[in-house]
Amino acid sequence: MPSPELKKNAVGRTVPVEINGREAVPFQGVAKYRPEGTKVAPSISTCIDYPDCGDKTVPDIKTALKEAGVRDGMTISTHHHLRNGDFVANAVFEAAAELGVKDLMWFPSASFPCHAPVIEHMKNGVVHHIEGSMNGPLGAFCSAGGMRGMGVLRSHGGRYQAVQDGEVHIDIAVIAAPTADPFGNAHGLTGDAACGLLGFALADSQYADRVIVVTDNLIEFPCVPWQIQGNHVDFVTTMDAIGDASKIVSGTTQITKSPDRLRIAEMTARFVREAGIMENGFSFQAGAGGTALSFAIYLMEMMREDGVKARFVRGGSTQYLTAMLEEGLTDYILDGQTFDLDGVRSMRENPNHVNTSPFTSYNYHGKGNFASMLDCVVLGATEVDVSFNANVVTHSDGKLLHGIGGWQNCLFSKCTILPIPAFRDRIPVLVDEVTTLCGPGELIDVIVTERGIAINPRRDDLLSAVSGSDLPVRPIEEIKAEVETIVGGAPAKPRFGERVVAAIKWVDGTVIDCVRQLEAAK
Amino acid sequence: MPSPELKKNAVGRTVPVEINGREAVPFQGVAKYRPEGTKVAPSISTCIDYPDCGDKTVPDIKTALKEAGVRDGMTISTHHHLRNGDFVANAVFEAAAELGVKDLMWFPSASFPCHAPVIEHMKNGVVHHIEGSMNGPLGAFCSAGGMRGMGVLRSHGGRYQAVQDGEVHIDIAVIAAPTADPFGNAHGLTGDAACGLLGFALADSQYADRVIVVTDNLIEFPCVPWQIQGNHVDFVTTMDAIGDASKIVSGTTQITKSPDRLRIAEMTARFVREAGIMENGFSFQAGAGGTALSFAIYLMEMMREDGVKARFVRGGSTQYLTAMLEEGLTDYILDGQTFDLDGVRSMRENPNHVNTSPFTSYNYHGKGNFASMLDCVVLGATEVDVSFNANVVTHSDGKLLHGIGGWQNCLFSKCTILPIPAFRDRIPVLVDEVTTLCGPGELIDVIVTERGIAINPRRDDLLSAVSGSDLPVRPIEEIKAEVETIVGGAPAKPRFGERVVAAIKWVDGTVIDCVRQLEAAK
Repeated sequence: MPSPELKKNAVGRTVPVEINGREAVPFQGVAKYRPEGTKVAPSISTCIDYPDCGDKTVPDIKTALKEAGVRDGMTISTHHHLRNGDFVANAVFEAAAELGVKDLMWFPSASFPCHAPVIEHMKNGVVHHIEGSMNGPLGAFCSAGGMRGMGVLRSHGGRYQAVQDGEVHIDIAVIAAPTADPFGNAHGLTGDAACGLLGFALADSQYADRVIVVTDNLIEFPCVPWQIQGNHVDFVTTMDAIGDASKIVSGTTQITKSPDRLRIAEMTARFVREAGIMENGFSFQAGAGGTALSFAIYLMEMMREDGVKARFVRGGSTQYLTAMLEEGLTDYILDGQTFDLDGVRSMRENPNHVNTSPFTSYNYHGKGNFASMLDCVVLGATEVDVSFNANVVTHSDGKLLHGIGGWQNCLFSKCTILPIPAFRDRIPVLVDEVTTLCGPGELIDVIVTERGIAINPRRDDLLSAVSGSDLPVRPIEEIKAEVETIVGGAPAKPRFGERVVAAIKWVDGTVIDCVRQLEAAK
Repeated sequence: MPSPELKKNAVGRTVPVEINGREAVPFQGVAKYRPEGTKVAPSISTCIDYPDCGDKTVPDIKTALKEAGVRDGMTISTHHHLRNGDFVANAVFEAAAELGVKDLMWFPSASFPCHAPVIEHMKNGVVHHIEGSMNGPLGAFCSAGGMRGMGVLRSHGGRYQAVQDGEVHIDIAVIAAPTADPFGNAHGLTGDAACGLLGFALADSQYADRVIVVTDNLIEFPCVPWQIQGNHVDFVTTMDAIGDASKIVSGTTQITKSPDRLRIAEMTARFVREAGIMENGFSFQAGAGGTALSFAIYLMEMMREDGVKARFVRGGSTQYLTAMLEEGLTDYILDGQTFDLDGVRSMRENPNHVNTSPFTSYNYHGKGNFASMLDCVVLGATEVDVSFNANVVTHSDGKLLHGIGGWQNCLFSKCTILPIPAFRDRIPVLVDEVTTLCGPGELIDVIVTERGIAINPRRDDLLSAVSGSDLPVRPIEEIKAEVETIVGGAPAKPRFGERVVAAIKWVDGTVIDCVRQLEAAK
């Protein structure tokens, strides 16, 4: 594969101007790129082509793919609400292989270690390449140069945007559905593979040429609520099991036990209180990582102490967020994915635990979205540099191991806080320049480490808000220098080849950075 | 206005092949016309153009229209969930008049007598013409030739189809919202103007260039459930009152007291039972007219007697349908509009009282819809002819007085029953040929009159199903002849001029019939 032409973008990263044969626009700065033209226009369907009785069932995935007209070079999408317990994506490519189809592009909302069998399908030619988050072995395979095409990583909102804008055309969407009816209405609230909601498949259902729903819990019409609308669906089929429940949602979510992480979590909560963000009617988002969970628990305690109630909190939901809702500490959970059984139960039972989608929450090419309304958001990162730029996809060793998720989209909140350890396994997390730039520093407001809190100098307001407090606010350079003294200097740079193996898209579809092939260790 | 070229369509009606400057396809038969091409593609928006804080409020409708770029010749849409109590549409054209805008096309999902002030706006040039149901005075004005353009009547599903397919481009949609937040999320469940749901405005929100939400109950974000998604909304504004609650939903719905109508209703229910339709897991739809309501009450009683439970019933919902749901006689109400306070309450409180839209229920250019899954549907008609063709928009005097509503869409049910009086005010309802053909006879299965039940000869299965019963099944010609003997002959034909004042669209966008200008009585 010849290397495409490269150009330097607005954050100084050299990025390809063509991705998998399609023109790509280098990142122009936050809120700078204006899209032109119209959203993609799906073909007009007619009820003539669908059974009056509403029964769209076919015997199996293979038949569904065949009737959907699968052929070489098509793009097939799946969603990742079943996370590391998903059985459906592997079954799809197994069926495609049996049908003798080649060169498919797989467009998952994210892939997980359970999808390692797709590596074989890339080797045997069934799958050409993956556009989507590649967690674990698939990311490593991509990093090592194993994929024929270029990987493209998008945020949840960026994926919706790409589909909506016609940047990615999905030929066939396959939607794993914990519960569905023969018309194709589907939800994730019940069934053995219950995962809560199906928002990551929304764009796929709306814009794909053909939509296949796969379920292991087929119920009589109507399947209510129709998180996925049967009116978008072509075929419905069944499998004995669409996933391994134990790997879809946790029984209970684990908080961190590390004293350093707990200290970081508590400092983050204190910062939110002392900066005046934790006020009646405020909102926040925190993920399901151990530190973020601990942050939520500390904050909950402070809210109780101060008699403060949130208007809404955003998930990934866990038992801790549902506890907040049930205790009356928040009016609403606006949830993008449920991480534990309690999240699923709450979403099923509580009308104030609301199902959201990348369209409502994150799509940057909409008439606004929810992300920018958040008073604060607490996120992770693999690296942060002295300009507050952050990396969330590669490790300092250069290996692509994570997806972007909603991370880029969340940066638009009024206060973005990254609680991170100052080093991991003796490798500093604070660096001169991030390996891969996923989020521009101008959107990242606060870094909380066990060695102090660094506030972005652009945020005078936050600096003055906490100036009277006893929070250990320090310049980021100072913390970084201290860490380097401890671990014995800045980390070694990874050895990259020239070939670009993956592009990192910004929320508006432009290219903010790219990942190069890792040279094999000598 | 010169008369457009006319052509005979598949049901022998002579219809225009151009409507308001746009090519029109004559009706080709049921399930014959295949649409080509793609759905309409709205412009890509960007969050750059919307406030990060999510507050899209502007002071008043006039400002909203101005900021939405209103100008001469644009198409402005409204919905009719506030029915005859709506204040918003009149306020919109008042504001447009103040702004000096001319020649607007009004595209309501339906108009009511309360909208009579728009007649003045048609006379003074602000409004050019109306495409949408015209109930009462607006229909009469159109019939008399008062509109400059041609009226176009569409079913609820046909309206969605027309917008989705780009046949009607909405420049500015104005959505009256009983409850909304500053981001534009809106629902009809609470507030002084609570009307239950907002499904008739769905297409408008999805496809209009600019969307304005008008509310008299602005609440803090998030307004949940978001029946209308703020991500589609450009501006939010307020009025003191968006409607007159007493005319939006009834306090309680009235059943018929006429002995003839009660007899018809009971016979209809008996037919449904004796034809074997009323079986466990069945489904039906009945409207809110007096006869349809009485039918539902009779059927409910028979369901109790026979221990039969429905899987779902479709509304417009009333206290009678909600009683069925609450008594456990049906698992679900799939509701398109709520007709009384009980319907609103039930939809607000009961997750099995489900909000539907013309997209889910009726859109013929989708991947199936709900209408064809119904085991039976009970509808009205102004006239039915001996070929079972039916009219629902004009009276026998030729006056256009009603909209199509969901009527055409519902004809796709497995058994379509029209319970109608054999004559009204001494004018026979059974005729040789309907004045306006809105529904082809092949889709109409049973006519129930006080003088007997006529079953469409195409439905051998229904004829044999009730052959052993004591139901008064008679040929339609026989009932018609009997009625004519009583009233002294067939009704006089209305005196029409040549000019086509309104086109009647079929569910697929083709023209099934048209309405000609009425000659003034001499």
